Amino acid sequence: MIKTPVKACLSVLLAVLLAPAQASEALRARDLGIPFDGEPGPLNAITDVTGVLVGHSTLIKGTGKRVVGEGPVRTGVTAVLPRGRDLSRMVAAGRAVINGTGEMTGSWLIDETGYFGGPVMLTGTTSVGMVHHATARWLRDRLPPSQWIAGLIPVVTETLDSHLNDVWGFHVQAEHVFHALDSAQGGTVAEGNVGGGTGMIAFAFKGGIGTASRRVPIGESSYTVGVLLQANHGKREDLLIAGVPVGREIGDLMPTRAQAAADKNSLVIILATDAPLTATQLRRLARRAALGVGRGGSIGGYMSGELALAFSTGNTVAIGQQQQTLTSPTAWHGEALNGLFKAAVQATEEALVNSLVAAETMTGADGLTVFELPEARLQSVLKRYNRLSRAPARTPGN
Amino acid sequence: MIKTPVKACLSVLLAVLLAPAQASEALRARDLGIPFDGEPGPLNAITDVTGVLVGHSTLIKGTGKRVVGEGPVRTGVTAVLPRGRDLSRMVAAGRAVINGTGEMTGSWLIDETGYFGGPVMLTGTTSVGMVHHATARWLRDRLPPSQWIAGLIPVVTETLDSHLNDVWGFHVQAEHVFHALDSAQGGTVAEGNVGGGTGMIAFAFKGGIGTASRRVPIGESSYTVGVLLQANHGKREDLLIAGVPVGREIGDLMPTRAQAAADKNSLVIILATDAPLTATQLRRLARRAALGVGRGGSIGGYMSGELALAFSTGNTVAIGQQQQTLTSPTAWHGEALNGLFKAAVQATEEALVNSLVAAETMTGADGLTVFELPEARLQSVLKRYNRLSRAPARTPGN
Amino acid sequence: MIKTPVKACLSVLLAVLLAPAQASEALRARDLGIPFDGEPGPLNAITDVTGVLVGHSTLIKGTGKRVVGEGPVRTGVTAVLPRGRDLSRMVAAGRAVINGTGEMTGSWLIDETGYFGGPVMLTGTTSVGMVHHATARWLRDRLPPSQWIAGLIPVVTETLDSHLNDVWGFHVQAEHVFHALDSAQGGTVAEGNVGGGTGMIAFAFKGGIGTASRRVPIGESSYTVGVLLQANHGKREDLLIAGVPVGREIGDLMPTRAQAAADKNSLVIILATDAPLTATQLRRLARRAALGVGRGGSIGGYMSGELALAFSTGNTVAIGQQQQTLTSPTAWHGEALNGLFKAAVQATEEALVNSLVAAETMTGADGLTVFELPEARLQSVLKRYNRLSRAPARTPGN
Amino acid sequence: MIKTPVKACLSVLLAVLLAPAQASEALRARDLGIPFDGEPGPLNAITDVTGVLVGHSTLIKGTGKRVVGEGPVRTGVTAVLPRGRDLSRMVAAGRAVINGTGEMTGSWLIDETGYFGGPVMLTGTTSVGMVHHATARWLRDRLPPSQWIAGLIPVVTETLDSHLNDVWGFHVQAEHVFHALDSAQGGTVAEGNVGGGTGMIAFAFKGGIGTASRRVPIGESSYTVGVLLQANHGKREDLLIAGVPVGREIGDLMPTRAQAAADKNSLVIILATDAPLTATQLRRLARRAALGVGRGGSIGGYMSGELALAFSTGNTVAIGQQQQTLTSPTAWHGEALNGLFKAAVQATEEALVNSLVAAETMTGADGLTVFELPEARLQSVLKRYNRLSRAPARTPGN
Repeated sequence: MIKTPVKACLSVLLAVLLAPAQASEALRARDLGIPFDGEPGPLNAITDVTGVLVGHSTLIKGTGKRVVGEGPVRTGVTAVLPRGRDLSRMVAAGRAVINGTGEMTGSWLIDETGYFGGPVMLTGTTSVGMVHHATARWLRDRLPPSQWIAGLIPVVTETLDSHLNDVWGFHVQAEHVFHALDSAQGGTVAEGNVGGGTGMIAFAFKGGIGTASRRVPIGESSYTVGVLLQANHGKREDLLIAGVPVGREIGDLMPTRAQAAADKNSLVIILATDAPLTATQLRRLARRAALGVGRGGSIGGYMSGELALAFSTGNTVAIGQQQQTLTSPTAWHGEALNGLFKAAVQATEEALVNSLVAAETMTGADGLTVFELPEARLQSVLKRYNRLSRAPARTPGN
Repeated sequence: MIKTPVKACLSVLLAVLLAPAQASEALRARDLGIPFDGEPGPLNAITDVTGVLVGHSTLIKGTGKRVVGEGPVRTGVTAVLPRGRDLSRMVAAGRAVINGTGEMTGSWLIDETGYFGGPVMLTGTTSVGMVHHATARWLRDRLPPSQWIAGLIPVVTETLDSHLNDVWGFHVQAEHVFHALDSAQGGTVAEGNVGGGTGMIAFAFKGGIGTASRRVPIGESSYTVGVLLQANHGKREDLLIAGVPVGREIGDLMPTRAQAAADKNSLVIILATDAPLTATQLRRLARRAALGVGRGGSIGGYMSGELALAFSTGNTVAIGQQQQTLTSPTAWHGEALNGLFKAAVQATEEALVNSLVAAETMTGADGLTVFELPEARLQSVLKRYNRLSRAPARTPGN
Repeated sequence: MIKTPVKACLSVLLAVLLAPAQASEALRARDLGIPFDGEPGPLNAITDVTGVLVGHSTLIKGTGKRVVGEGPVRTGVTAVLPRGRDLSRMVAAGRAVINGTGEMTGSWLIDETGYFGGPVMLTGTTSVGMVHHATARWLRDRLPPSQWIAGLIPVVTETLDSHLNDVWGFHVQAEHVFHALDSAQGGTVAEGNVGGGTGMIAFAFKGGIGTASRRVPIGESSYTVGVLLQANHGKREDLLIAGVPVGREIGDLMPTRAQAAADKNSLVIILATDAPLTATQLRRLARRAALGVGRGGSIGGYMSGELALAFSTGNTVAIGQQQQTLTSPTAWHGEALNGLFKAAVQATEEALVNSLVAAETMTGADGLTVFELPEARLQSVLKRYNRLSRAPARTPGN
Repeated sequence: MIKTPVKACLSVLLAVLLAPAQASEALRARDLGIPFDGEPGPLNAITDVTGVLVGHSTLIKGTGKRVVGEGPVRTGVTAVLPRGRDLSRMVAAGRAVINGTGEMTGSWLIDETGYFGGPVMLTGTTSVGMVHHATARWLRDRLPPSQWIAGLIPVVTETLDSHLNDVWGFHVQAEHVFHALDSAQGGTVAEGNVGGGTGMIAFAFKGGIGTASRRVPIGESSYTVGVLLQANHGKREDLLIAGVPVGREIGDLMPTRAQAAADKNSLVIILATDAPLTATQLRRLARRAALGVGRGGSIGGYMSGELALAFSTGNTVAIGQQQQTLTSPTAWHGEALNGLFKAAVQATEEALVNSLVAAETMTGADGLTVFELPEARLQSVLKRYNRLSRAPARTPGN
């Protein structure tokens, strides 16, 4: 039996490399001149939806040969708090499946009631149990007992970091979960090799966390749709960026182990909006993620769990609905939905490219190296296909 | 090829036996002293939900040997109008499947948007197409062109009247559909061998249409849950009434052809409420029908389509939502739902027994006779199991 | 009340313009040099799946001002017969929803049992009832009575031809349905303004029927995935072809009435395969259609019903399963699925472009003209984006 | 912040009261003369399905005032191993929701692929994370690395033991999970206050684990349907046993704290069969649980998560389907399904009563006492309703 990692690693891992919360200088997809439609919010991030906070715990430790329970460690946890530190209300939500070979806990509750409380946690597949456990503890410790019920059914989702990370070492501990939750903040969201996305691979390039947002005017109002995703899916040959077959044009820079290039992993997509929508409508919004994913070239590989969850901060009910309560959530109908739907498609497409642009080359377990998408070559390819904006905001160094 | 029934039968069938709209003297289950829980509305019918109208077209014609396209005819159509003659708004709705081997058109729309417009039509399986067609025409003819969109996706559901009826003769014509719709009214609802339930068989007794309702106080308000069902399911041995194994106790009076006793038919259940509920909550309400059906003894036979649809007249949106509109439907949460859920279970259970009590012995195609549930014997059985109320309101004649 | 169209139009419409079954000279998307991935079957059509037949009834009659019940008529019916004239067995099937604001009858049965019998019918929205009715009659007339059960739950799906067609005139009659069914054949499939696609509009160009196929080697075997779709969805600005923003590049040639350019219509996609798959796997295959639709630029407009159905001719059960039967359908698992999934994405993407390329400019109700996608300009645009194959097989005339 | 329970309790809890695996003398529902239909297997337990093993870890510690993190502890874990110690293959499975306000991890995978590997774990709500984590570790430690993938998506389900147990103390540790898994065996299954059922309350009586089975002949073969459930649902007034309103007849013996009598908890139902069924058919089987639950009187309280999972040991695929494999699972169709469906209804109904009969009066957190169903009084009530078998096998002591 493999030695339990709890004692062996806990002290070491507490010296975790925490994701820098502010990374304002980071290069993003549209800085490269990649054309995207629609108007992003000020941060072009899920945090453009007022109240949404994001925190990462990034675990990077060790190099060389994989010893189960010791490392190398390339994993983490990302926390998305729909209503910030205010845990007193549940948000309306709907989910959608592109390919269901993954996990997102809490989905029965979301289907049944159209609401969930607490944060949304993204992590590696083998950390789902610990993140679930620790999230329930964290909620208990920060809520009055009358609201502990908010911790009953945490929402935890995952993709599989089995190539770069000692995935069967179970390195994520409760402390890492608490850190992701406690450090969650608004503002710029770190992307790429951070949090749950630390050890992820997408289209045989280094993948990870990506985010984007869109502004949507409806009548006199203006709403935001934000997306945060954890990309760990896709075969190189299938990658499309702005409609261009980038994966076929950049056929080299493959992972140094062949099986790390297979499409057996996953993609999870969290959509947030402040538009007041019903749970039924949020399920529709979540389904639009598939259309954005399609634009990126995914064929939904048979073991690539591709799951989406959409929530609205504009339609909430009080936690602990023991008493009977009467709500009157507003909801848009008709044409108004089209702007939100289009925003979901566009923000998903851009967040995916953002994850590839932000991720950096990583060497992990057994010396596997997974290369980042080379930005300058990407620009060359796009230019060849006449799909580079006239004036890219910035020129990458590579 | 069989001669098309259109010309052959149309004139004859226009002399249809129309269901008497008022049948106030009809015997109902609780008149017999069968104990049911909960407080029914004044009519103990789906029409206790304000605005809901019900109309039947009952087609009974011919006797003797079955000649496809000629008869004997034992079929019909029942129309449930959620908002009466006002077709300007859609009602919130949710559906549930107990056993999906049946048809209810409009279900993709209901799942997607949580609303439907127009009536709910119940008929025999082979009449779904004609009823769908005629309902769309009826809506077109009664609406201003700007609202014709209400006719695009009619809700039509069915059970199979293949034993008593010349089911492959397609005897239901547009005129019968129009009649059911035009004659729909509030007040007492005719049950048993009427409308869509005309030729139906349940638990090897004569089945058909049944209805019931429950009052549900929530806070200062009082709401109603009404059920109308078309019962055509169940094997004799499985029939339970008030928990008593009535089917086993009354093992005789079987249909005069064995295959008419098999459990291959169906049950469709329409639940209406004026309680303001979201589409998500209405799906929950519809699912409660399964619990009531379970109490009646069904095991959900493999080809017995058992489908439920719940709608709320308390949560509506305008038809033709071309423009963007903002609604604020109220909705109850928490404990308040339990009363509605219990009402759905109870009203389903009672409506099922009402259908059996109201149905009368019928002889149909190829001389098949299906017997009604013998009320006096039912009382004897219940009494033996100490499940007869002290003072039955009425004593049946048989 | 509008005069019933039955008597007024029946004789006239019998002089229907029937779709030419063979149109071997027709221009198709890849003839223009549009690059598509994967290897198509010999016909690049759903009929590459052995046994699948396709028939069209195309109704084109009248010009000028719309008079409800008289015309102009621009509608029709398309029949897809999964197992040709052999109606003795049901095919395994699964469905998927991209946007559920449409109708596909039979879906409860498909969800519940994983099988359906009979043909798949595509038509205009207001013809669903008549097509349902006539398909049941057609099945009754061509089957031995023991198999009439195959006609109980026909599969009928639709998109809305409300702009070019007198959609509320209900012009499709039983005879048209019979013709589509009786004339169904293998070989080349007519595309564009034919059958159910006659009056459809996609991305504000003339849309309609499109088809494509892919060969998929698995182990020693070779299978086919075929797609047939009816395209009536999308806003011009969203149209992507081979990843190129064609809709933005060709902003003129808009329909001559503005509301005909809105995205309120629909898209239905039928996927056929001879690969032995379970119903569960076919649902997965159907979901891949969304990824192909995404590549075409759809954002899933709020009233644009986008539905998919996949069936396998390699997994069937006998109709009329009254007796208990034991089957042992083979099914591929694992990596084998990826080839099929990719084929579904690719064939969907290509079938959509085929529908646009095949469709021809049409003038219909109230003089509305909807223009075809101009092929030469499409080539120019693609060339500008370096997305035109070196040697287009053919040069379009326009 | 509450002190983490890990260090405080671990050593103490290792002295856990383990459920007696053999309890052959235990009284069961049919020993009391309660009439049930159908023929049970030799053990009348889920273990009648060949290969299925069951193990319990029962945690009972402390009395008196609740101190979060210390106790009193009344909780546990139950493990159901579908194929015993052989973890090399996945079993076909389908799930159904009666009321989705609960958790069952692994459900996306089951919906998508129709299979799952590994055990099914039942526990208290706040232990889901730890049980998930520990189950993944247990699988890793007992499998060759090539099959570790079997541990990726464990199936863990729950009901809430918040009244008798210090539910927010998170007392279940990995060791308890390992014990439940390691001690799993065939033969008699302990019921009532054991494993995941330890602290559960049903219909305001003491609830917990219950099991039952039915033999189902199909053609020459004989199959078994087994049920194991964890009952924690229902209001007293709603309890029906053999159709008799037992809950109303025994209105005393209420929990000593009023809120412990509310219907806000849950019921999870695991159905096993050796009949070869497809995933689609297993979903149908799981849905039949609702009909059995209905017979027990549940109305599906608004926060009472009632979930069902059915699996077949007769339809399996190899774990780690990296390579493409071709399977030919047999499956029964038609009439054959009815026997299995009826068995599912009957075994669910009986397992529920078994849980109530087996459970014993328990005093837990804050001195709350929940009383067992008094067997002698139950017999009296049933006798009064003529629903007691002539010769009960045994007379209870109370």
